[in-house]
Amino acid sequence: MTYCVGLRVASGIVMLSDTRTNAGLDNISRFSKMFTFEQKGERVIAMMTSGNLSITQGVMSRLRRNIQKAEEEGCDVETVLNAPTLFRVAQIVGDEMRGMQGEYRDAITAQGVSTDASILLAGQRKGGKLRLYLVYSAGNFIEATRDTPFFQIGEHKYGKPILDRVISFESSIEDVVKGACVSMESTMRSNLSVGMPLDLVVIENGALSFSNQRRIEANDEGFASIARNWSQLLRNGFEKLPALAD
Amino acid sequence: MTYCVGLRVASGIVMLSDTRTNAGLDNISRFSKMFTFEQKGERVIAMMTSGNLSITQGVMSRLRRNIQKAEEEGCDVETVLNAPTLFRVAQIVGDEMRGMQGEYRDAITAQGVSTDASILLAGQRKGGKLRLYLVYSAGNFIEATRDTPFFQIGEHKYGKPILDRVISFESSIEDVVKGACVSMESTMRSNLSVGMPLDLVVIENGALSFSNQRRIEANDEGFASIARNWSQLLRNGFEKLPALAD
Repeated sequence: MTYCVGLRVASGIVMLSDTRTNAGLDNISRFSKMFTFEQKGERVIAMMTSGNLSITQGVMSRLRRNIQKAEEEGCDVETVLNAPTLFRVAQIVGDEMRGMQGEYRDAITAQGVSTDASILLAGQRKGGKLRLYLVYSAGNFIEATRDTPFFQIGEHKYGKPILDRVISFESSIEDVVKGACVSMESTMRSNLSVGMPLDLVVIENGALSFSNQRRIEANDEGFASIARNWSQLLRNGFEKLPALAD
Repeated sequence: MTYCVGLRVASGIVMLSDTRTNAGLDNISRFSKMFTFEQKGERVIAMMTSGNLSITQGVMSRLRRNIQKAEEEGCDVETVLNAPTLFRVAQIVGDEMRGMQGEYRDAITAQGVSTDASILLAGQRKGGKLRLYLVYSAGNFIEATRDTPFFQIGEHKYGKPILDRVISFESSIEDVVKGACVSMESTMRSNLSVGMPLDLVVIENGALSFSNQRRIEANDEGFASIARNWSQLLRNGFEKLPALAD
């Protein structure tokens, strides 16, 4: 399984993903699900993937291959780094997704395995706004808005209630990072197939580079402190809640 | 959809269910999913159902028909009210479930509709312990233990993290009711197909009658107060959480 959450608020974008994958319960591996593309001062893009790993790795390989091709052969090849808008970038990612699905879907589903996959794509280009897209298996996509400032892929349910309660378009980046951590921690507690370490990316509005891009290891003291404090707070708060009157 | 949660702790049992059912998104109805069977001072049983409504209603009808038959014809008919143990009651419920599935599964699945259903069954008989069972579509069942003091059926994910954090086998009945309410409220916020009013049943250890059995209406002030206080507490607590260090 996987849990990735991408949040776009007025002041920036936060992307947080786990690294656990599983083929069945007895085949657990670690793969990063975070992919970044950066041209400092020009554009910054982060993608997170969930679902069939061969499909999403294929999509990422094709995106990177095209960037390499464009570098070698000049700008005739359209890539996520030279496409004119983030909207167009989402289309390119969707096209590669549809290409992979078209090539492998029949053979994979014949083996009783699902090819479902999805990609969270976020970033900003010079002169453009912060964008966050959710790309589906069919290559179609939706964009986050002020009303819905976050998207989740993978095991999304356990970590949703807390985001609904504390995140809004006006939240500070610091709060959004905190919220993503709490949401991730609730998910890891409930689903063993979501696990540490985590990959975190922060894009501040207008920075056109990653303000923060790092791995949160299992022994990260900052993450552990958030988890510990949150647990304590919930238990203490719960005790103080009024009882239900008969 | 449906959300039902049953909790068995040392001091008693709490069962809480919503009342919303849906066949697709455009056909929403209200049905109680709580069914009670009581012989004061002898035994007390509550069941909650989720899944295919025609299947679960069929099971409940058969259970009641047998009770009526036993009353009219004497005790030759084994029922949930005269079976020697709660374990045997779970077997009877499982048998009726398997009977309904055997009779209708092929015809219903031919229509592209699932017959999946499950039943939470809890109670106590004179001289016996508090018991909580989860009966599956195949009629097999599992029992809650000290390590796992609650079962959920239906839309179980949104409301699980809070129960994992605050409920243990040593929790007071008052806390368990509160916890069930918070869990239900988190679920209703995230899934529109789970909705008010709610049905609540409380069975205290040794009481052999329902200590509390009531409907919580949409305008219930006590429930609203728990929801309001919990939201406030989460938001205030979240603000005080330490930020993630860079």
